[in-house]
Amino acid sequence: MPDTDAIPAPGPLDALRAELRRRALSGFVVPRSDEHQGEYVPPSAQRLAWLTGFTGSAGMAVVLQDRAAIFVDGRYTLQVRAEVDCGRFAPLHLVDQPPAGWVAEVLTRGDRLGFDPWLHTSDQVEALRAACERCGAELVACPDNPLDAVWTDRPPPPLAPVTLHAEFLAGRSAADKRAELAAALAADRLDAAVLTAPDSIAWLLNIRGGDVAYTPLPLSFAILHADAGVELFLDARKLSPAVIDHLGPSVRLAEPPAFGAALERLGEQGKRVRVDGATAPSQVVERLKAAGARLDRGSDPCVLPKACKNPVELAGSRAAHRRDGAAMVRFLAWLAEEAPGGGVDELTAAARLEDFRRQGEHFRGLSFPTISGAGPNGAIVHYRASAATNRMLAAGQIYLVDSGAQYRDGTTDITRTVAIGPVDAAIRRHVTLVLKGHMALAMAIFPAGTTGGQLDVLARRALWAEGLDYDHGTGHGVGSYLSVHEGPHRISKLGNSPPLRAGMIVSIEPGYYKADAYGIRIENLVCVIEAPAPAGAERPVLGFETLTLVPMDRSLIDPALLSDTERAWLDAYHVRVRTEIGPLVEGAARQWLEQATRPL
Amino acid sequence: MPDTDAIPAPGPLDALRAELRRRALSGFVVPRSDEHQGEYVPPSAQRLAWLTGFTGSAGMAVVLQDRAAIFVDGRYTLQVRAEVDCGRFAPLHLVDQPPAGWVAEVLTRGDRLGFDPWLHTSDQVEALRAACERCGAELVACPDNPLDAVWTDRPPPPLAPVTLHAEFLAGRSAADKRAELAAALAADRLDAAVLTAPDSIAWLLNIRGGDVAYTPLPLSFAILHADAGVELFLDARKLSPAVIDHLGPSVRLAEPPAFGAALERLGEQGKRVRVDGATAPSQVVERLKAAGARLDRGSDPCVLPKACKNPVELAGSRAAHRRDGAAMVRFLAWLAEEAPGGGVDELTAAARLEDFRRQGEHFRGLSFPTISGAGPNGAIVHYRASAATNRMLAAGQIYLVDSGAQYRDGTTDITRTVAIGPVDAAIRRHVTLVLKGHMALAMAIFPAGTTGGQLDVLARRALWAEGLDYDHGTGHGVGSYLSVHEGPHRISKLGNSPPLRAGMIVSIEPGYYKADAYGIRIENLVCVIEAPAPAGAERPVLGFETLTLVPMDRSLIDPALLSDTERAWLDAYHVRVRTEIGPLVEGAARQWLEQATRPL
Repeated sequence: MPDTDAIPAPGPLDALRAELRRRALSGFVVPRSDEHQGEYVPPSAQRLAWLTGFTGSAGMAVVLQDRAAIFVDGRYTLQVRAEVDCGRFAPLHLVDQPPAGWVAEVLTRGDRLGFDPWLHTSDQVEALRAACERCGAELVACPDNPLDAVWTDRPPPPLAPVTLHAEFLAGRSAADKRAELAAALAADRLDAAVLTAPDSIAWLLNIRGGDVAYTPLPLSFAILHADAGVELFLDARKLSPAVIDHLGPSVRLAEPPAFGAALERLGEQGKRVRVDGATAPSQVVERLKAAGARLDRGSDPCVLPKACKNPVELAGSRAAHRRDGAAMVRFLAWLAEEAPGGGVDELTAAARLEDFRRQGEHFRGLSFPTISGAGPNGAIVHYRASAATNRMLAAGQIYLVDSGAQYRDGTTDITRTVAIGPVDAAIRRHVTLVLKGHMALAMAIFPAGTTGGQLDVLARRALWAEGLDYDHGTGHGVGSYLSVHEGPHRISKLGNSPPLRAGMIVSIEPGYYKADAYGIRIENLVCVIEAPAPAGAERPVLGFETLTLVPMDRSLIDPALLSDTERAWLDAYHVRVRTEIGPLVEGAARQWLEQATRPL
Repeated sequence: MPDTDAIPAPGPLDALRAELRRRALSGFVVPRSDEHQGEYVPPSAQRLAWLTGFTGSAGMAVVLQDRAAIFVDGRYTLQVRAEVDCGRFAPLHLVDQPPAGWVAEVLTRGDRLGFDPWLHTSDQVEALRAACERCGAELVACPDNPLDAVWTDRPPPPLAPVTLHAEFLAGRSAADKRAELAAALAADRLDAAVLTAPDSIAWLLNIRGGDVAYTPLPLSFAILHADAGVELFLDARKLSPAVIDHLGPSVRLAEPPAFGAALERLGEQGKRVRVDGATAPSQVVERLKAAGARLDRGSDPCVLPKACKNPVELAGSRAAHRRDGAAMVRFLAWLAEEAPGGGVDELTAAARLEDFRRQGEHFRGLSFPTISGAGPNGAIVHYRASAATNRMLAAGQIYLVDSGAQYRDGTTDITRTVAIGPVDAAIRRHVTLVLKGHMALAMAIFPAGTTGGQLDVLARRALWAEGLDYDHGTGHGVGSYLSVHEGPHRISKLGNSPPLRAGMIVSIEPGYYKADAYGIRIENLVCVIEAPAPAGAERPVLGFETLTLVPMDRSLIDPALLSDTERAWLDAYHVRVRTEIGPLVEGAARQWLEQATRPL
């Protein structure tokens, strides 16, 4: 029956459209996010991927009956064309042609555009609502998601066991954290804070999990009350008796579907409730409002204390970085031996690096998919090697490897750019400019109150002076055996982040990318410390302690471009790397380390 | 009748309170601003000074029946105590204890707090309204100002003649500006823009005036229509036939009281109207809204083109700076001769400097009150010498002079810090750190899109490294024969300013202040230019051209603290100063200049 072959099987898009017609909706918005607005979503919430095929980490589709569009940012303009049927989904730029603008153009008076209020923040909903109003359409919150209704082979939600994050790693008991945050709520005359970010809840309760890739957290919701009690909404099948015992009687357990009713209870009691507009689903805000709660929009109260690591967490991070440094040194020594002969490709290299890391104590997995880019692939900022793109690490080129791990005592993230044999002077010049930026930031001394946005220029100045730049942030916060991208601080041209505070871990990762040729990035994690007061100092100053302990490739540095101060910083860094990592490695790796950490 | 002496004459505060009682108001808010939100207000609008005695440039009073408070910022904490009866007005900190917070604490349910909606922006009103709501009070817009009703000896509004700002100075005709802005309005589907900032109107129509001190502008309101026509609301007594002729038939003249009716007309016609929330009085916004206008909140459309000076304006600025440099050089030569002997005080010095400036062509007055601070007075950032504070310029101390002028072809603003004879090494070290910050910014090269907020750290880094800083912005925009403080750009820790663009004039003025000892500030004006592309550049880059041409005091610089690049910059700057200013000065001044501009 060849004819039936000509009729395409009704795919997700057709099924969704039929469902929308049944519900008298003109269209529906499908974001990449789930109800936690996190970086990774479990398979059960990968609605955008199911509908469109797009697997990138950010994006949104809008489906109407006669057309559909998928919006992705600059990182994914190539990937979206490879993964998505662009005849059915017009690929548009998330920033330059945002969904709200498109919606305002294509909808007409009387149209009804649906959205799932669990999957969007209030700000996102406001933008869509304004767009609908401009064209006379109506934005309709769907109490149940029409896509879910037709996603027949939807995977079940993840059920990874919840684990304890012991006090010898966390540095503080969960009871202590709850008490401190509750006192702050009370001082602000708040009755409760709604927590929808799973990493906040994991930090607060000293628990970890495995519900999403790369970040050891259990998906959950919680309400922290001003009496230090917590309602935790989490599938009980994930909990062992030991964990239940750890949580204790102040943490009242409930299944996730009970979260809505708990919000209503807060409202009915007229409670003053903190909600974080940056992460809370629109549904949470609306339900609280409708039930009569008094909303206080502000930061999730876990965000700042989670970001400011305590001495135990910092000690853990230092230990994790020594282990990670030893793995990187073994890898780089292996690479120096194998790659120049032409026997290593990107996938092999990434796998070998993971092997070296896996040997480390407390290793629990990677903290993100390794970026392993040889030659021109290094210029793709969010490159992920595949069988189709895999390249050999070729002599005369440079290789960029950005990778990290989750250890029980800390999260790592490092980028090194490595020469495969001798490379030409232009590359060395560019590497040296990037290194100068890295060092300028690493050496910075600044008063309390300074933001990462203020410091960002230090990492770019050497490149700017030559008419060069890089189109990504300079640094992101990092969690403690949690998210490798963690707020609220960052180092970025976008200035609106809170000041850096002692204990914050942040990456320093300037880069330079020559399209179709090569990519350079030099990344260490550092933590903010109270710097020793210079003679005559009038104000307390902060600085950075470098956590990452892995040599920079000396063969890529042009010493003539460095100042005496820069050269001294690099030599001292290498002495520290040799001293701290040397005892952890042996044989060829030890020999390689000795060579790699010689003075310039 | 000695008894009557014991009863204080009913002063402004009592009169205002009686008037408030008559109007059944519990209190009233008296800001320093007038309806134009400008830096200087005419005597007829100096309500805060009349009520309280306070003459600072920013502040606000709130008067209740049983108490009153005056709010000033950190610059004025001393001055407010000197000028105001603090038994009657509690002096509070405008930032740390803002009026809204105070109001929320002292008002009670049922209280009615009045304000004049012409004197506050909508944002300011919103803060007050939220405060009143918190305590159950009501915020009441007063259609006529109760303070004005009791200010019996109120001066009349200023009537300074409007003058032409000729095209050979402005570089563009007013018709050309109107046409360009009108086209932009039309492209945004706007019918009109309401202009309430007099400097915007002066720029747009190529007119100047003298209604306030230090800034050559006529006070006025205007409405720019999308057909390039303008309604100008300005007292006709300020206009000569020549100016009326210059304005032409596209500029329809009306008296200021007709402004309200014109706003209502826009509303009745359902127009889409641009209003700048940062500067428009609440009254303008409310009147437009009530009448049915569709509001588009956004920037005053004059702000950006006014800030980006055209080649003719830049040529004028360079000429003005040569003239101003010659005056400064004559002054500094005179100072070098007279001050070490002990014969010069702050007031004499400021007067002498003004004399030298007055000799320059196109001089029209100072651009702000000269800051002339000797020794410890230099540490007061906004110091203004008076008979009471006047100090001698004493040997072994440093002298800070921050001054500027209005010339028909440009506005200047310069600060120099000068040694009176030899000074100790600690001072020289601090001066050199400030100079390093100045030079780092002056030499900066940066891509298009960079804001002053991103660059600010360059001016602070050398100080930060020693645990030092200064508590003011690094730079402000400057007008073209207009305001010496002009937006939208600036160089500041506060990051939210728009990117720097070619043609913008901005000050670079880092400082260091040792309380009760000395103050240092080194300020040049620069303009943003397209920098020559470095070899291998991939992006267009911007940089700064220094406009100010006056030597830095070489005796205050410790060359050992300078890099080769910094020393080269300074020597080259001094060569340029000698070359450009040398031919303009003679005799002792010329000789002094030769000495002052020698290589380090």
